[in-house]
Amino acid sequence: MKIIIINGPNLNLLGKRETNIYGNQTFTAYFENLKAKNTEISLEYYQSNIEGELIDKLQEVGFDYDGIILNAGAYTHTSIGIGDAVKAIETPVVEVHISNTFGREEFRHHSYISAGAKGVILGFGLVSYELALESFKL
Amino acid sequence: MKIIIINGPNLNLLGKRETNIYGNQTFTAYFENLKAKNTEISLEYYQSNIEGELIDKLQEVGFDYDGIILNAGAYTHTSIGIGDAVKAIETPVVEVHISNTFGREEFRHHSYISAGAKGVILGFGLVSYELALESFKL
Amino acid sequence: MKIIIINGPNLNLLGKRETNIYGNQTFTAYFENLKAKNTEISLEYYQSNIEGELIDKLQEVGFDYDGIILNAGAYTHTSIGIGDAVKAIETPVVEVHISNTFGREEFRHHSYISAGAKGVILGFGLVSYELALESFKL
Amino acid sequence: MKIIIINGPNLNLLGKRETNIYGNQTFTAYFENLKAKNTEISLEYYQSNIEGELIDKLQEVGFDYDGIILNAGAYTHTSIGIGDAVKAIETPVVEVHISNTFGREEFRHHSYISAGAKGVILGFGLVSYELALESFKL
Amino acid sequence: MKIIIINGPNLNLLGKRETNIYGNQTFTAYFENLKAKNTEISLEYYQSNIEGELIDKLQEVGFDYDGIILNAGAYTHTSIGIGDAVKAIETPVVEVHISNTFGREEFRHHSYISAGAKGVILGFGLVSYELALESFKL
Amino acid sequence: MKIIIINGPNLNLLGKRETNIYGNQTFTAYFENLKAKNTEISLEYYQSNIEGELIDKLQEVGFDYDGIILNAGAYTHTSIGIGDAVKAIETPVVEVHISNTFGREEFRHHSYISAGAKGVILGFGLVSYELALESFKL
Amino acid sequence: MKIIIINGPNLNLLGKRETNIYGNQTFTAYFENLKAKNTEISLEYYQSNIEGELIDKLQEVGFDYDGIILNAGAYTHTSIGIGDAVKAIETPVVEVHISNTFGREEFRHHSYISAGAKGVILGFGLVSYELALESFKL
Amino acid sequence: MKIIIINGPNLNLLGKRETNIYGNQTFTAYFENLKAKNTEISLEYYQSNIEGELIDKLQEVGFDYDGIILNAGAYTHTSIGIGDAVKAIETPVVEVHISNTFGREEFRHHSYISAGAKGVILGFGLVSYELALESFKL
Amino acid sequence: MKIIIINGPNLNLLGKRETNIYGNQTFTAYFENLKAKNTEISLEYYQSNIEGELIDKLQEVGFDYDGIILNAGAYTHTSIGIGDAVKAIETPVVEVHISNTFGREEFRHHSYISAGAKGVILGFGLVSYELALESFKL
Amino acid sequence: MKIIIINGPNLNLLGKRETNIYGNQTFTAYFENLKAKNTEISLEYYQSNIEGELIDKLQEVGFDYDGIILNAGAYTHTSIGIGDAVKAIETPVVEVHISNTFGREEFRHHSYISAGAKGVILGFGLVSYELALESFKL
Amino acid sequence: MKIIIINGPNLNLLGKRETNIYGNQTFTAYFENLKAKNTEISLEYYQSNIEGELIDKLQEVGFDYDGIILNAGAYTHTSIGIGDAVKAIETPVVEVHISNTFGREEFRHHSYISAGAKGVILGFGLVSYELALESFKL
Amino acid sequence: MKIIIINGPNLNLLGKRETNIYGNQTFTAYFENLKAKNTEISLEYYQSNIEGELIDKLQEVGFDYDGIILNAGAYTHTSIGIGDAVKAIETPVVEVHISNTFGREEFRHHSYISAGAKGVILGFGLVSYELALESFKL
Repeated sequence: MKIIIINGPNLNLLGKRETNIYGNQTFTAYFENLKAKNTEISLEYYQSNIEGELIDKLQEVGFDYDGIILNAGAYTHTSIGIGDAVKAIETPVVEVHISNTFGREEFRHHSYISAGAKGVILGFGLVSYELALESFKL
Repeated sequence: MKIIIINGPNLNLLGKRETNIYGNQTFTAYFENLKAKNTEISLEYYQSNIEGELIDKLQEVGFDYDGIILNAGAYTHTSIGIGDAVKAIETPVVEVHISNTFGREEFRHHSYISAGAKGVILGFGLVSYELALESFKL
Repeated sequence: MKIIIINGPNLNLLGKRETNIYGNQTFTAYFENLKAKNTEISLEYYQSNIEGELIDKLQEVGFDYDGIILNAGAYTHTSIGIGDAVKAIETPVVEVHISNTFGREEFRHHSYISAGAKGVILGFGLVSYELALESFKL
Repeated sequence: MKIIIINGPNLNLLGKRETNIYGNQTFTAYFENLKAKNTEISLEYYQSNIEGELIDKLQEVGFDYDGIILNAGAYTHTSIGIGDAVKAIETPVVEVHISNTFGREEFRHHSYISAGAKGVILGFGLVSYELALESFKL
Repeated sequence: MKIIIINGPNLNLLGKRETNIYGNQTFTAYFENLKAKNTEISLEYYQSNIEGELIDKLQEVGFDYDGIILNAGAYTHTSIGIGDAVKAIETPVVEVHISNTFGREEFRHHSYISAGAKGVILGFGLVSYELALESFKL
Repeated sequence: MKIIIINGPNLNLLGKRETNIYGNQTFTAYFENLKAKNTEISLEYYQSNIEGELIDKLQEVGFDYDGIILNAGAYTHTSIGIGDAVKAIETPVVEVHISNTFGREEFRHHSYISAGAKGVILGFGLVSYELALESFKL
Repeated sequence: MKIIIINGPNLNLLGKRETNIYGNQTFTAYFENLKAKNTEISLEYYQSNIEGELIDKLQEVGFDYDGIILNAGAYTHTSIGIGDAVKAIETPVVEVHISNTFGREEFRHHSYISAGAKGVILGFGLVSYELALESFKL
Repeated sequence: MKIIIINGPNLNLLGKRETNIYGNQTFTAYFENLKAKNTEISLEYYQSNIEGELIDKLQEVGFDYDGIILNAGAYTHTSIGIGDAVKAIETPVVEVHISNTFGREEFRHHSYISAGAKGVILGFGLVSYELALESFKL
Repeated sequence: MKIIIINGPNLNLLGKRETNIYGNQTFTAYFENLKAKNTEISLEYYQSNIEGELIDKLQEVGFDYDGIILNAGAYTHTSIGIGDAVKAIETPVVEVHISNTFGREEFRHHSYISAGAKGVILGFGLVSYELALESFKL
Repeated sequence: MKIIIINGPNLNLLGKRETNIYGNQTFTAYFENLKAKNTEISLEYYQSNIEGELIDKLQEVGFDYDGIILNAGAYTHTSIGIGDAVKAIETPVVEVHISNTFGREEFRHHSYISAGAKGVILGFGLVSYELALESFKL
Repeated sequence: MKIIIINGPNLNLLGKRETNIYGNQTFTAYFENLKAKNTEISLEYYQSNIEGELIDKLQEVGFDYDGIILNAGAYTHTSIGIGDAVKAIETPVVEVHISNTFGREEFRHHSYISAGAKGVILGFGLVSYELALESFKL
Repeated sequence: MKIIIINGPNLNLLGKRETNIYGNQTFTAYFENLKAKNTEISLEYYQSNIEGELIDKLQEVGFDYDGIILNAGAYTHTSIGIGDAVKAIETPVVEVHISNTFGREEFRHHSYISAGAKGVILGFGLVSYELALESFKL
């Protein structure tokens, strides 16, 4: 099983940025742990701050991989383009968020991605990613 | 670990109602399976079509149990009272939905429960409940 | 032919409450007349002020009866749960209102029930129920 | 008893147009049937695609006839002028629609006519007209 | 000086319709009085219930006459087409209303005509027309 | 003088729930004090989490008692049914809230009850009830 | 006949300010002309930039004078207080505007004064005042 | 205990203005009664139609007095400045209204003052002031 | 190939009206040119200022012709009836506009016709019609 | 004549993605055909999923080329930056869409590009590009 | 160079009021410092809590002075009258705010003054005034 | 002191593009002047049309530099991602705009950056940058 985690803008600052919301572990450290716990899965990681590069990556992996775990960060709320890519590809996409987006600013309550996603998991901190991974196993 | 699944209105029709959206397994059957797979957890199930009875139940279990998995059904979108109960109790609540509510009518895109929930899981069919259960173990 | 009239909140006050809008006949008196005029139909009556009990009743009769005449009263405008029940059951539901809801407050102009109903009849006073009954005969 | 059915724009295409929504009977055929079934009533029919001609007709019959059955079609949602005419005349007007307008586009959910109508009947297909006729007899 | 009064839908019912709002004088009677009081002006009157005929008339007189007094009735609030005609012609148009439209329903508070009019006079009953006539003399 | 205090959802958690907003006194303790201070009044107390039971109670006491002090809690903002009951009964209803609802979430700024109430008192903590009681004496 | 013209904020700059919209005559010059043309009327003039002083003046003259011509300027669109004063007094108030407010910014399209005014005249430049005066004579 | 009642625009017309809403007692007469009934309190009264003078007065008394009873009248709904003053001062402010503002026009349903007030009392006629006074004693 | 151009309100003023937006060529002159350049096509032209007559014409040609080029002018933005006719007929309709409607007033940005049209072409001046004609050839 | 077609996000998936909406021809194949049919024009093609690269390209070609055919895909609805670039350059831009955007989701009904475009062509499938090309020849 | 700083409502409380937002320096102290640092400029200061007095002052200085630094406080968000005055005068106005208004309540995000101002400076605490002064020197 | 100016989309066209709004000086020329006038500061310049590259740059400099002067151009109004980056980094950011964004289109009145910025300066043409630089010195 081939699965990729795709992270959007500012998620490369994890562990450094607004630690009261996002916690202080870097995503790389978390990813290595996750990989170690799931050796039966070919697990990859990609991050970009550029909307179009996220679309490029979704198109690249979206016809071969078995699953995509997508945290599009701020683009979740503004990118019809990423939402279109999610609908256009064949690999199922699980949308995740670290924070509870519904407990934050109004403009974070809407997602252009959810409607095309296989499912949505949010608010569990980094555990959101692990639950998403779990969803591909069940 | 003591966990309860609380289901709201019309979810007792599962397996009978709008099967193109909700699938054709009854919730009771699903629940027995889930329980059998998780024998280390004391797992209970409660359903009511009455908003206030859901509040009663949340208050009753909300100071002793280790976790609540709540699918408030249609009340998700209209009940400030259930949202208040979720915030008032101490047991963490995971909000789940069977269908991808964001792929349905506009009025199902808003939840009065999310902001007070520990996390939200939706769109995975009945698997949403299993992932919610998983979230209490991780 | 088995038909039930289901009335929602405050309709038990008919003949007593805001008589300028609803007239001064009690619903029970009206129902007995209606039954007497339609002896070929098995006609029942149910009323509750509790949203969830209305859902319970809709589920109970919704797979056997030939028709439901539903005046959900104030819940018409706020209950996604009753609207869901109407869609989930198999018996056709005719939505009725005694008053012309479109001539009253703005918040009474929207109905969560109409879209799932077989038809809507409103504004004819208690005659609305009789026309609804007629609709099952035609 | 003198009653007129007034139909608005595109209802002359009935039986030809979007038959999945409106059925495939022409209105003329239906009207002849209805007349035959109600010989005790002087029943007339008028149709125009022109908003102002519908106003003309409402004014012409609105002080002598015993009842008007009005399906203003698309003008229902845009014509304050027809709504004003309904309020200005003395003959009671019953608003009817063939389809369940509340199950269609958002812009068909509002009517400028309802507030001034004696009652509203919608969603029963052509039977809506018959129920309207019935309402004048009860 | 050549001036025309153009009245829109339902204004032919004046003196007959909703007399609490519009008074009980017919417009024709009023017009004859006005004409008698203003013999130095060539004063004409036109009324139609049909939006497009009002546009036709505006186009017909709009390049020769010295002034147009327009009460477009209900079309005031819905007709971009009449508003366009007012802007397209050369004769100045004064918009009048008999009633105080701002003291009535919300949907009567907006006019598609005002922005292109030379001026607006409303709320003075039939006197509104006389003031409009006066405005062409000053 | 016969007066009843009716409390809605989650108010039974008072003294236990979100004490930073609602204080830490239980309502029962407060009620006993209030009763002791007002022995000349027959003072009763009722609480339910169920919307329809609140309507039931309002109907039951609403034609005999001298006053109702109603804190409908979260139903204040969503229940047209309770608002209708308040208007339908004859006993005057004073709406109270413990917290300053206008200093909280946007969705708590609207009340379906206020328009039908004799008066509204909010923000004084439990003292709101005492002031409401006072209002029946003045 | 005793009539007063009351002007609101910035109207004292007339003839100096934004002359493309308001023309270049000072209001004082215009007022003297108007007075000279209407010697049979006791005509007064008051101007203030202060909302509350306009209310004071309306109250002062509003029970004795025969008419008030009010151009509340920018307060037209924001002052519920002036609108309340207009409704509270007994002297009829004619609302005037020099410019066509409906051809300007969106926020100038709403008036808190119109609903309580005897009539509204706008867009005729300074002639608006003269027409208002005329309206008291007709 | 030093308490001041501050009244906003048009409240000086009490007893004279719209007596169907506000009753026919002058505020001065009412105030003298209130003072006589509460001799243990140093009770003052201030009224102005000018928004800024209300702010001046709030600032003047807002650091020494024990309580302010504020009926800002129409400014309640439009004045961020008075709302800011209420928050800026130290003396607790109780907002009162004579009429039930929620039963009147939509634009009277919002208050810029409530969020900063100690409490809100409305709809009891002049008794609202007495209850506010009571609130400082409890 | 049989194609008709149908023009709505005020387009008969072309070449005369607001020449800065629409240019100064009359439509008749343009139409003759277009016909001369496309002799292989049976090209007709119809114009009316009356909404219902446009519906009549669409119904008349809409089951025989090969294409309709429709510029409904102002009715584009207000006529659900024309939009319904476009959907009801079988001949494909291409919506055209001379001006760039998106660069003009907000109320010209919405079209009730677009959703049912085969395609939309706008902003190219009179060339829009030629491109529409071209679209039927490709 | 030097013309470039610029395509935005996900249009590189054409022929692969959502073929019910977009058809199953790849854009490259279509482009080669178009070029072959228009040998007198120097025709180029550029595609990027990155918003800023589309801006870069518009700036690069926007002062030398004779025409730009722009299908900005999802960025049409969200990119003020591309809209600004279209206005900032000198080469005329024709906006095209393959699908009828007005027949799809509400959020695809608004374009930040249209107001600055020379014209808009949409809904003709890939033929939209050919019509756009045609528009530069006429 | 003659420059005046004009401060609106509640800014006289600076150093006393909500010190977490505005700091604890009085404006007078700050002003004396600013004057001492800019001896080459004739610098004046004016403050009023009354909207109309701010308009008076703007009119008084607005045709002679070289610059106005205006912090209209709460009137920024509600006063069309001050906005009109800023546009009506000739002296350039720089709008300043001490706090970052965009980080505060929604209703402080809109300004009626900005559109007519030479520039806007906000969020720098009292330094905002100094930067505004600087802007007149550059 | 190390300060960087970061410019967003289309600002590289300065001096070439819409010179009536932005003036005709290139930004590079302006930057060299600014640097020459501020030799005591290490001043850098970066521009990109790509949203994600602006995020990259903010992250790169945002933990070491003393100040960032950010003109995100069109992304100001649409990029939650840049707004998040501004909040995530430690270096204070001053938001600047050349034009008075509040005097332009409605969609330019909202900024996702302002709330997280140290301050905002806009409308002074290129001088806005110099004032921003000044703000770091004061």
